[in-house]
Amino acid sequence: MKFSELIQKLDSGASTSLMVNPSINPDIVGVSAIDEAQPNTLSYVESHKYANQIATTSASALILPLQPELQAQAIDRGIAWIATDQPRKVFAQAIAFFYQPFRLEPGIHHTAVIHPSAQLGAEVAIGAHVVIQAGAILGNGVCVHPNVVIYPGVQIGDRTILHANCVIHERAQIGSDCVIHSGAVIGSEGFGFVPVSEGWLKMQQSGYVILEDSVEVGCNSTIDRPALGTTQIGRNTKIDNLVHIAHGCQIGENCIMAGQVGLAGAVKMGNRVVLAGQVGIVDHVQIGEGAIASAKAGIHHDVKPGEQVTGVPAIPHKLFVKATAVFNRLPEMYQTLRQLQKNR
Amino acid sequence: MKFSELIQKLDSGASTSLMVNPSINPDIVGVSAIDEAQPNTLSYVESHKYANQIATTSASALILPLQPELQAQAIDRGIAWIATDQPRKVFAQAIAFFYQPFRLEPGIHHTAVIHPSAQLGAEVAIGAHVVIQAGAILGNGVCVHPNVVIYPGVQIGDRTILHANCVIHERAQIGSDCVIHSGAVIGSEGFGFVPVSEGWLKMQQSGYVILEDSVEVGCNSTIDRPALGTTQIGRNTKIDNLVHIAHGCQIGENCIMAGQVGLAGAVKMGNRVVLAGQVGIVDHVQIGEGAIASAKAGIHHDVKPGEQVTGVPAIPHKLFVKATAVFNRLPEMYQTLRQLQKNR
Amino acid sequence: MKFSELIQKLDSGASTSLMVNPSINPDIVGVSAIDEAQPNTLSYVESHKYANQIATTSASALILPLQPELQAQAIDRGIAWIATDQPRKVFAQAIAFFYQPFRLEPGIHHTAVIHPSAQLGAEVAIGAHVVIQAGAILGNGVCVHPNVVIYPGVQIGDRTILHANCVIHERAQIGSDCVIHSGAVIGSEGFGFVPVSEGWLKMQQSGYVILEDSVEVGCNSTIDRPALGTTQIGRNTKIDNLVHIAHGCQIGENCIMAGQVGLAGAVKMGNRVVLAGQVGIVDHVQIGEGAIASAKAGIHHDVKPGEQVTGVPAIPHKLFVKATAVFNRLPEMYQTLRQLQKNR
Repeated sequence: MKFSELIQKLDSGASTSLMVNPSINPDIVGVSAIDEAQPNTLSYVESHKYANQIATTSASALILPLQPELQAQAIDRGIAWIATDQPRKVFAQAIAFFYQPFRLEPGIHHTAVIHPSAQLGAEVAIGAHVVIQAGAILGNGVCVHPNVVIYPGVQIGDRTILHANCVIHERAQIGSDCVIHSGAVIGSEGFGFVPVSEGWLKMQQSGYVILEDSVEVGCNSTIDRPALGTTQIGRNTKIDNLVHIAHGCQIGENCIMAGQVGLAGAVKMGNRVVLAGQVGIVDHVQIGEGAIASAKAGIHHDVKPGEQVTGVPAIPHKLFVKATAVFNRLPEMYQTLRQLQKNR
Repeated sequence: MKFSELIQKLDSGASTSLMVNPSINPDIVGVSAIDEAQPNTLSYVESHKYANQIATTSASALILPLQPELQAQAIDRGIAWIATDQPRKVFAQAIAFFYQPFRLEPGIHHTAVIHPSAQLGAEVAIGAHVVIQAGAILGNGVCVHPNVVIYPGVQIGDRTILHANCVIHERAQIGSDCVIHSGAVIGSEGFGFVPVSEGWLKMQQSGYVILEDSVEVGCNSTIDRPALGTTQIGRNTKIDNLVHIAHGCQIGENCIMAGQVGLAGAVKMGNRVVLAGQVGIVDHVQIGEGAIASAKAGIHHDVKPGEQVTGVPAIPHKLFVKATAVFNRLPEMYQTLRQLQKNR
Repeated sequence: MKFSELIQKLDSGASTSLMVNPSINPDIVGVSAIDEAQPNTLSYVESHKYANQIATTSASALILPLQPELQAQAIDRGIAWIATDQPRKVFAQAIAFFYQPFRLEPGIHHTAVIHPSAQLGAEVAIGAHVVIQAGAILGNGVCVHPNVVIYPGVQIGDRTILHANCVIHERAQIGSDCVIHSGAVIGSEGFGFVPVSEGWLKMQQSGYVILEDSVEVGCNSTIDRPALGTTQIGRNTKIDNLVHIAHGCQIGENCIMAGQVGLAGAVKMGNRVVLAGQVGIVDHVQIGEGAIASAKAGIHHDVKPGEQVTGVPAIPHKLFVKATAVFNRLPEMYQTLRQLQKNR
């Protein structure tokens, strides 16, 4: 499409005002990273930091920040541009005009095995070899990729996508516009065993898992149901691959959990919490709204709203950075101390 | 059912003596957490610590510890109760009267693909799209949920449950009364490569995986077979989600491994070992009976029976706690040391 | 087969010269670990360290290192032997004569669902309930185990094996002679969300995943595709179970990643890098050729070629070992320092 058409599409949907250079109007056939761009593709520059790439890119159009000198650079090179205070956001909107992930066509594949008591909404797409057990309820426009298994009584909201080979267990309720990626398991039995003299007695897990709207769960991640009550994931929270969320966790809205994060039972988390990769949280800990845990942090105690913690056991990030700097000097400190002791 | 009926059922099976208050006999329709209880549900109080919740709960019946003052509180509020020295154990028994996880009905789904040389016991339940390869042997009452794949020659004991989409590879032998949760992979090839001048030479993994009776393996966990000999998991050991057990590990009975634990090759572990979440153990380490590893511990050396270890590399827990307390003061210690040096 | 036949087979293929003791020629029916060996099996001794096991083993033949005294020991016990400078490599070659993992016979199972536009090479083996979407291209001799799902447009090279229940997403290109183990997910959407005022805006992941030839990906591991460009895994790199490789990583050849390693986005790694279990690397870090990361290392900064790093944040291994030794003495150092301060 012409760059001008693309701009019109962006403008209508964008929440940020766009400045436009109308003088050049190339055909745009795709999107690209600025340092690997082909002609007739659109790319973006996040900030001044990447300004020098404007001088060498082969992209025909750029999304720029609101910095006149960058715009001048683009003009010098004959590159079409728009400018915005959120280049990455606008670029994300632009990608969606050139690429949409594969979706099944609405319809039910003849190899799917669907219990007669299951209820399917309008325009659902059910792939090959899908199994849907008794009493499950799927909303309108739900897309279930091949080999997914849905246990009895599961509820799934409108337009939610289940990728291939994921499993949704009984007592799971998934909201609208969610994406469950391949191999994820939602609603499986919590790890509940009571120590008894003979070893371990299984506690049946009779609770529920609730995913609110627009939650994403990454590939091969697992979210367990509890013995009692619910495991709940708040609206718009995004969970990466290979994450484990144990029975009874209560997660807020708009949280982000990176790959291989692990939450033990009954963790309570406010909105907009960010957990970097491989973070672990022990059971019953509370994490305040907007808190941040650095990669590999091991959290044993409550974290205050807005606090950033690091380390195992996790401590305030700034303290960790200072203490770690000294950690590297421990051998030398030890020698100094011995020396001082001798000289006393 | 009437509370009195429930008590009779518990009494017949329970190993702990129960004290009963016969004066009130409500209908019990379900179980609940004490702080979220609805009327006509049964809940429990583990110890004095949660005593104040008796004053506010809406539960109609409680399982209490053997503490007369708690029983008096329940009587004051008109709540039926039984008392025992193991409230959580008795509650776990009670849940099972109100909730049982979904099981397939015995029978073989017509979409299952079963090799004619496979042997199936009495009353097996084989779900849709299950694949069972040549020579596999399934005991009586085995339940195989949809989309499970069983490779040739696998053996599975009586009443074992395989949840949806798990995979059991050749040379795996699973005992009776085991539960393999969704997406788990048992008996896959160990990660065995020999460094050669051209890179890595694959060593074929010709050994076996043996799961003894009553083992549970969590969702998306993986247990590899070795090049030679066996990988073995002892009776009644319980393994949580996303755990990795490498080729040749020898795990004792009644062990507990929490989520995302990782064991490198040939780890040897006694009975009743407890590994908290995200613990890692390097290859060939021996862990003594009853040892405990704290969350995120990285174990590089043998651990003695009964010892608790923490940290990376793991050290005795008490030492770790003391050293960590000082770690947080390292910046201040460093300053002090510099000052002392100057003033010398 | 006779030991002499086995030797001939090894000799023809082996790159290391073999010394042979021709005096004894037992029948060899299998392979075994030296300490668990049965008569008529072949075992091996890696080095002097395990020499005492020659005195007690029941193996009928041994692969030995080039050490005359070990050969003399074997002769004393009437054990046949060959000697080489790479016993483990030759043993790996020998195993393959006694055990080959299960492969499907060429052919297409009648329950597989294959889009008419998919192209299948000669001698492919497609298992039960496999789903292959539009435009996928599979090379000659590809083996696809049951319940695998292949999204549209995927390319898979000759002789590659896909184990049961793995999922290959659109825009993935897998080379020849690769092995993708059960439950692995290749080419899934990268974890790309742009922070916006309302929460998180999904960035469509329009890039590619490329696995070069002879790559192995372990069970339930995940490799994501990026928004732009490629995620690429170099030739002959071996990846263990439950590993997560995020969008845009560029991994060299002949690398090794042990279980539960996690790579954030756009990590760049040279050839022959070794990552031990549970290592984590933050985004955009560069790891030089031949570098080694110890188990559980958390890498926040670039690592030089050949360097070994340990700890969180990772530092040079030798420094880590020294600093850790002092860490354990921190409580005592703290007391000493207080004492010195008082006595000043």
